[in-house]
Amino acid sequence: MSTTRIRVSRRTRALLPQNRGRARGRTLATFLILAAIAVAGNLVVPEPVQADGDSFAVLSPAVVSQATALRDKALQDDRAWDFVEGLTVEVGPRFPGTAGDRRGVEWALATLKAWGFENVRAEPVTVPKWDRGTATGRTVSPFPQPVVLAALGGSVATPKGGLEAEVLRVESMDELGALGDGGADGKIVFIDERMERTRDGRGYGAAVAKRGGGASLAAEKGAVGLLIRSAGTSTSRIAHTGGMRYREGVRKIPAAALSNIDADLLAAQMRRGKPVRFHYELTTRDLGTAESANVIAEVVGRERPDEIVILAAHLDSWDLGMGAVDDGSGCAIVAAAAKLIAELPERPRRTIRVLLTANEEFGLSGATAYGERYADAMDKHVAGVEADFGAGRVWALRSRVPDDRLPVIDDLAKLLAPLGIEPQGNRARGGADLRPLRQALVPVFDLSQDGSAYFDIHHTIEDTLDKVDPEALRQNVAAHVTLAYIVAEYDGDLGRAPE
Amino acid sequence: MSTTRIRVSRRTRALLPQNRGRARGRTLATFLILAAIAVAGNLVVPEPVQADGDSFAVLSPAVVSQATALRDKALQDDRAWDFVEGLTVEVGPRFPGTAGDRRGVEWALATLKAWGFENVRAEPVTVPKWDRGTATGRTVSPFPQPVVLAALGGSVATPKGGLEAEVLRVESMDELGALGDGGADGKIVFIDERMERTRDGRGYGAAVAKRGGGASLAAEKGAVGLLIRSAGTSTSRIAHTGGMRYREGVRKIPAAALSNIDADLLAAQMRRGKPVRFHYELTTRDLGTAESANVIAEVVGRERPDEIVILAAHLDSWDLGMGAVDDGSGCAIVAAAAKLIAELPERPRRTIRVLLTANEEFGLSGATAYGERYADAMDKHVAGVEADFGAGRVWALRSRVPDDRLPVIDDLAKLLAPLGIEPQGNRARGGADLRPLRQALVPVFDLSQDGSAYFDIHHTIEDTLDKVDPEALRQNVAAHVTLAYIVAEYDGDLGRAPE
Repeated sequence: MSTTRIRVSRRTRALLPQNRGRARGRTLATFLILAAIAVAGNLVVPEPVQADGDSFAVLSPAVVSQATALRDKALQDDRAWDFVEGLTVEVGPRFPGTAGDRRGVEWALATLKAWGFENVRAEPVTVPKWDRGTATGRTVSPFPQPVVLAALGGSVATPKGGLEAEVLRVESMDELGALGDGGADGKIVFIDERMERTRDGRGYGAAVAKRGGGASLAAEKGAVGLLIRSAGTSTSRIAHTGGMRYREGVRKIPAAALSNIDADLLAAQMRRGKPVRFHYELTTRDLGTAESANVIAEVVGRERPDEIVILAAHLDSWDLGMGAVDDGSGCAIVAAAAKLIAELPERPRRTIRVLLTANEEFGLSGATAYGERYADAMDKHVAGVEADFGAGRVWALRSRVPDDRLPVIDDLAKLLAPLGIEPQGNRARGGADLRPLRQALVPVFDLSQDGSAYFDIHHTIEDTLDKVDPEALRQNVAAHVTLAYIVAEYDGDLGRAPE
Repeated sequence: MSTTRIRVSRRTRALLPQNRGRARGRTLATFLILAAIAVAGNLVVPEPVQADGDSFAVLSPAVVSQATALRDKALQDDRAWDFVEGLTVEVGPRFPGTAGDRRGVEWALATLKAWGFENVRAEPVTVPKWDRGTATGRTVSPFPQPVVLAALGGSVATPKGGLEAEVLRVESMDELGALGDGGADGKIVFIDERMERTRDGRGYGAAVAKRGGGASLAAEKGAVGLLIRSAGTSTSRIAHTGGMRYREGVRKIPAAALSNIDADLLAAQMRRGKPVRFHYELTTRDLGTAESANVIAEVVGRERPDEIVILAAHLDSWDLGMGAVDDGSGCAIVAAAAKLIAELPERPRRTIRVLLTANEEFGLSGATAYGERYADAMDKHVAGVEADFGAGRVWALRSRVPDDRLPVIDDLAKLLAPLGIEPQGNRARGGADLRPLRQALVPVFDLSQDGSAYFDIHHTIEDTLDKVDPEALRQNVAAHVTLAYIVAEYDGDLGRAPE
């Protein structure tokens, strides 16, 4: 294992670090120490990738070697698994404002302290509090039978004893919108739109549109209730919840999601041609607000400690499952990546800040609070990446940096390529929790996870530990630690992101 | 298409039919009519199987040809699908004594009449009535979180407000039985035994033992409640219900099944080493008895109408799912098989009786009632087969006939071989609903279905139409119609089964 195998391009020098000699001097020592650690821990450390000749345009050999070593060590490290297993078994659901949410914050604080991070703290966040209560539903006539459904997050309750009406089926928001005034008078609108299974999750856009806005659109057409086919691809008999909102000034009607199987049932009953009546009861309650917290842990930078690289995920989860995938895995990935960096003999230049936000799911309270608290420090936030798309393998890298910094991204992409990650351009959107960073034009990155199976369990009772693949989790940590190390150590700067 | 391609063994004649000439005379006409029907219906009728030279020991060429044609027509026929789709969409759950049970009986009567069967009738059966109510459970300490569970069928309720105690985990009935007196005093016993996935369902024996008898054994050891890992192989977060019973004179404790995922959770919490307390509430109710019915439909035999071939399945289902697989598919298979025979230009010698029993799931009431009602006619029951192992493809044939009738079975096996069905000896057990026939030594058959996936959804909310594969259903009908036709038409007799 030697850094001499990695050769650096002699072509592009504009953004090269100023102190390569020093970095180079550290490299061999770093590797010897890592090798010693690996031997002591009985780990098999894979050979660092053989970079092809003069392929690194910007990064110094020392940085490349260190990033490579971190990446490869991550592929042997199961602490992300330990994190998500612990969070899932010892806490489970962490719905904003609940006791589980509070226990999640305590658990994360205790764990991150035990892992040896610096500046571990909880920063208070006020979150909305909503209780799902119970949800029951059934077809009434002509073919009565019970169905599986779940209230959408934020829905009002039905009248006590439930709500019964004839079902009006539409296949899309467009079809609903095209109804004339009163076109759904007195009806329960059923939006029977099926979500597409894709690797990149692009089917979720339409799914969110009906889930978030279906109730108000249906109410405008006269409907008394809303049912949607679950915004998810599950083939199990489980319903997908998720946030919805009422438009100002529009009558609020109770909104629920049917499992895909029960949506099939309702559609099949309606194909018989007779009016189908449906009954459901939701006992949801709006309970105002409650206190939660963003949890923060840091690896303080050696040279520019005030410059912050954000590794974000959200600590809260929906109430139905255990939040193992969404987003326990994301928390585990970023915590484990930061932990690997904390264990280096020398810290990177900048501070790595692990940010586990409160209430992403039900209104982005934590991200908003973070943005307000750190508004004046946004110019010191140099980059952000968020893990919040499950536990599938990372397959794509997207950046959002000025064009003249793209050589850095090219180098990063080369380091990620052995993980099966391909560069996908410079239009990264960042995760929902990175919104304050995006708005401040902080460079953001997407390490896009394979979402093919994500929407089978997203926002359901099946968001459980068994859905997490330890190997895919390690690959995620490898990708995140590589990216985090590069942006924290790189001694140029990434500038501000294009709008 | 011609019968001349099928040659008959000249070796074994002991059991040969007496009227082969007559049967042979009918064969060409039958085929021409079938071909005309097929052409009219735009069906592609596959070539009958080319039997190898002198391979049929007993059956006449006419019978072989007709059975072959029926078998191959079944592979093109979707009426079994129509049946199970209708039963599932228009009725759904048919738990004994419920309104769904009554609607199932009405639906089956109407459908079987519409299909043109003779002697369609409901024969009253008194069934036990038990209501599941609601089931909620949670770990209390040290790691509180909700779990998914289901009451076992017949369980008593917990005290109002629920039952809380420390959990005592054992891995088998044997381990529970080995506890000393008072070894489970005041505890909730958790039998954490995992069911094995197999094609032939052999893992179900141990599963049923803990489900059926675990509560009384735990109570004898002092337990206040019973939890079992679901008697099923599901990897979804769903609990498998199923019948349990209390032993006479033993204190009755409430019994529930955890989903496999929640069993994993509880086990993982217990591995932390601290006492785990658990709370659950079951609001089950014993409601005495109710009226249901066996549904019967016949294809009356042309020569020996008093001799009965039973094609059985059970019409009832558990309450949680839609009873699509267990046993809507079985009902569909036997009904469709009988329908194909009813459409022949000439009926077989004996009467085919489709028997859709009441309450198989919760005490075999229908089978018992049938046995009592027809006790004096058991000597006229010549054979029985039951479809009650889901909707997977048939892979094995077992018979239970006197040894000197095995040449008939060999011939039958040859007819089934092209369906991928292998002979598996003469120790058929018959299904649960064939118990009265077995006790009367009526020859029974097993057409063993592939159960690899059956216990993923068995007795759960996921027993739904999407789990039924139309192609596998057709293969099942082909197997059943072949067997039914042979035993109804064969002009020897099968005698009485060995004990």
